[in-house]
Parts: sequence; C-alpha cells; structure tokens
Amino acid sequence: MALVGVHNFAISLDGYGTGAGQSAEAHFGHAGDRLHQWMFATSGWQAGGSGGVDDAFFRRHDPGIGAEIMGAGKFGHPGWHEDPDWKGAWGPNPPFHTPVFVLTHHTRPSIEMEGGTTYHFLDASPAEALEVAREAAGGKDIRIGGGPTTVREFLEARLIDHLHVVVVPILLGRGVGLWDGLEGLEKDYDVEATSSPSGVTHVTFTRTTA
Amino acid sequence: MALVGVHNFAISLDGYGTGAGQSAEAHFGHAGDRLHQWMFATSGWQAGGSGGVDDAFFRRHDPGIGAEIMGAGKFGHPGWHEDPDWKGAWGPNPPFHTPVFVLTHHTRPSIEMEGGTTYHFLDASPAEALEVAREAAGGKDIRIGGGPTTVREFLEARLIDHLHVVVVPILLGRGVGLWDGLEGLEKDYDVEATSSPSGVTHVTFTRTTA
Repeated sequence: MALVGVHNFAISLDGYGTGAGQSAEAHFGHAGDRLHQWMFATSGWQAGGSGGVDDAFFRRHDPGIGAEIMGAGKFGHPGWHEDPDWKGAWGPNPPFHTPVFVLTHHTRPSIEMEGGTTYHFLDASPAEALEVAREAAGGKDIRIGGGPTTVREFLEARLIDHLHVVVVPILLGRGVGLWDGLEGLEKDYDVEATSSPSGVTHVTFTRTTA
Repeated sequence: MALVGVHNFAISLDGYGTGAGQSAEAHFGHAGDRLHQWMFATSGWQAGGSGGVDDAFFRRHDPGIGAEIMGAGKFGHPGWHEDPDWKGAWGPNPPFHTPVFVLTHHTRPSIEMEGGTTYHFLDASPAEALEVAREAAGGKDIRIGGGPTTVREFLEARLIDHLHVVVVPILLGRGVGLWDGLEGLEKDYDVEATSSPSGVTHVTFTRTTA
C-alpha cells in the first residue's frame, strides 16, 4: 500500500511552521528564510553543501512520490485566487515533478508546468483529496506538502504514515502553529529525534498501527 | 558574577511544561510523570541507571547552586496557601539543600526542612526576588526551578544566563506553555540541541551578551 508522508517540514522551537504576515513578498511571513537555512546548506540543495544528516533527510523529498497535496497557502500568498494568471509561488519548473493537488475553495482549471508538475485544484476534505491523489500517484507514495494547517488537518484525520519535522532553534512567537489539537498523537507512532551539527533537530513519527 | 540558570526543565514537543488539571494528586496535571521518565532512568537518580547524556545534564542540577527561586505552583497544588500546615510538594528532605524562595502572593513564615532546604516566601517581581536570592546564595549560582510560568517570566525579564530545556517527544495538547511571548529569545544566546538515545532532546541556551 502506498504511504502518506510529510518530508522536511520545518517548525520553530515554539511550533510555528509559518510566521505571521504572509504576503507575495514574504511566503513564510516574518519567519523569512530562517526555517529553511539548514536545507539550503545541504549538497542536495546546492553543490558544495553538507552531506550529513540534514542532507540525508532532505533527499527523501522526491524518491517514490507519485503526487503531492498542498494547502492554498503553500500555492500562493493570501488572495492569489483573485489573480487568474497566478501559477503558484514555485516558479515555472516547480520542485514537485508530479501531479500536485491544491486544496482551495476557489478551484480553477488544471495548470501544466515544466518538469512534470501539474497543478490540480480541489475543494475537498483531506480524506477525499487523498483518494484522488492516490489514483493519480499510480501506486507510488503521497507527499503532504504543507503548510502547517494542511499537515495538522491530515494528522487530525489520522491519514499520515510518516511525519518528518525539522525543529529549528528559533522562537518565532507568532504565526501558524503545527501542533494545536494533536494531544496524544505519539501513541500511534514510533518517534525518533536526531540533532544535527547545524543546530536543527529532526523528529520523525513513523506509524506503528494500521 | 554568580549566574542564573534553569536545569532539567522538561517540556512536551508542543511546549507544555505542566499538563492541565494540576492537583494535590497530580503535580503535573494530565502529564503525569511522562515529562520526567528520562530523568528517573539516569544513574544520578537511581543506582543502575544510565550514565550518558541524560545523566550528565541531570547531574548539573546541584553543583555550584546557592539558592533556588520557584513559583507557587512548584511548591504545591492550587490552594496550598489555605493549608497552614502545608510544607511543600517535595517531602521532608527536599532535593534543593539550599535556601528556596517561593514566589507567592500568600506569604508565610519561613520553613526549615531537613537536608539544608529552607523555604522562604516572597511576594516580589523576578528582579526583586533575584536580588534577595543572590544575597542568600553567598556568591554561588541561582537556580530558577520552575514551573513554566516562572521560567517564562524570568526569560521575559532577560534574567536567565543559562537555560536547559528537555524536549520530550509527546504532545500534551494542553497545560501551561513555556514559550509564549518569547519571540527572538535566541538572539541573546548560543543555542545547542543534543538528542539522546532515550528519545528526548536537550536544548541549551547560553547567554552571549551582557
């Protein structure tokens, strides 16, 4: 059975996956790029980068994935749906290379991008979206791409088999939290924590129950 | 100059240092003893325990400390001040062995316990309490013992030189959080994270600025 996973999902020590004040200029709000510097420093991101534990986790993003599901806030800044020409915050050749299902109340026709990414727009529950994505993935795994609200909703619905969170040692103080309403989540998972020389800690939840 | 530190302060992955529903029977509320099992498994706690990184951190609790400051919620369950015979939640020989200053609006005469602990009761701000504790500590360091509200207030007042937090991989979902209102705290500190085979991650904040 294909698995449903979250990879490289960065949060601050106080649990925010996105800062406050998201806009077209600040995709992560006041967090800027502070949640992702560990990633930019890996050799998987750019030549000459590190080849250690951060890189090993980073490179799990693509292999075996047949489709991604993302929230509207990952696709674009608040209000993107009012721009009929908006094609996402991820450039002409987005780093997904599979069908991507964007959860939004403002659906539009699918958009084919370079490099194998096609955006589809769904107004659907997590379980409904997953059913559609599974079909598109052709037996491969499904990535839940974020943001924090989307990951949390899939966790609440108990649809995630593997969760990889990267805890960055900063305190954002405000933004969109990942953990609200998830009391006892660990009971269904094996949990491991691995701190990296970069300062971040990788925490993985791997499902142990059906 | 004597330093002000927090040692072995355990929080859940979602940032709670105490669960909800504290009572005489449940000092940490619905968290039970889940935040402190890593500590009970060390050789510093009991013979035959582990001697690794958890133990090394645990044993930093006592050496060099001349006084502790704790909040009313660490001293006893809600309402302890209505019991004139209440002598704290820490037994006849408490694990402090120094003067301990209890921050409370309900002060009472000092209580001398076995083993060198004397409880004093102060209705004071963090800065005022620290001044009194420094005098009592005779040049030794001061421990801020918790709970989360007390630690947070000392952090907000920028009075902490060294903070050792132990992140336990459980989601409590509710309780008293440590991190609220501390945006950007890391700017004044060197931060290190060290994950342990026990599953917890030790995070230390060591002050770099005066």
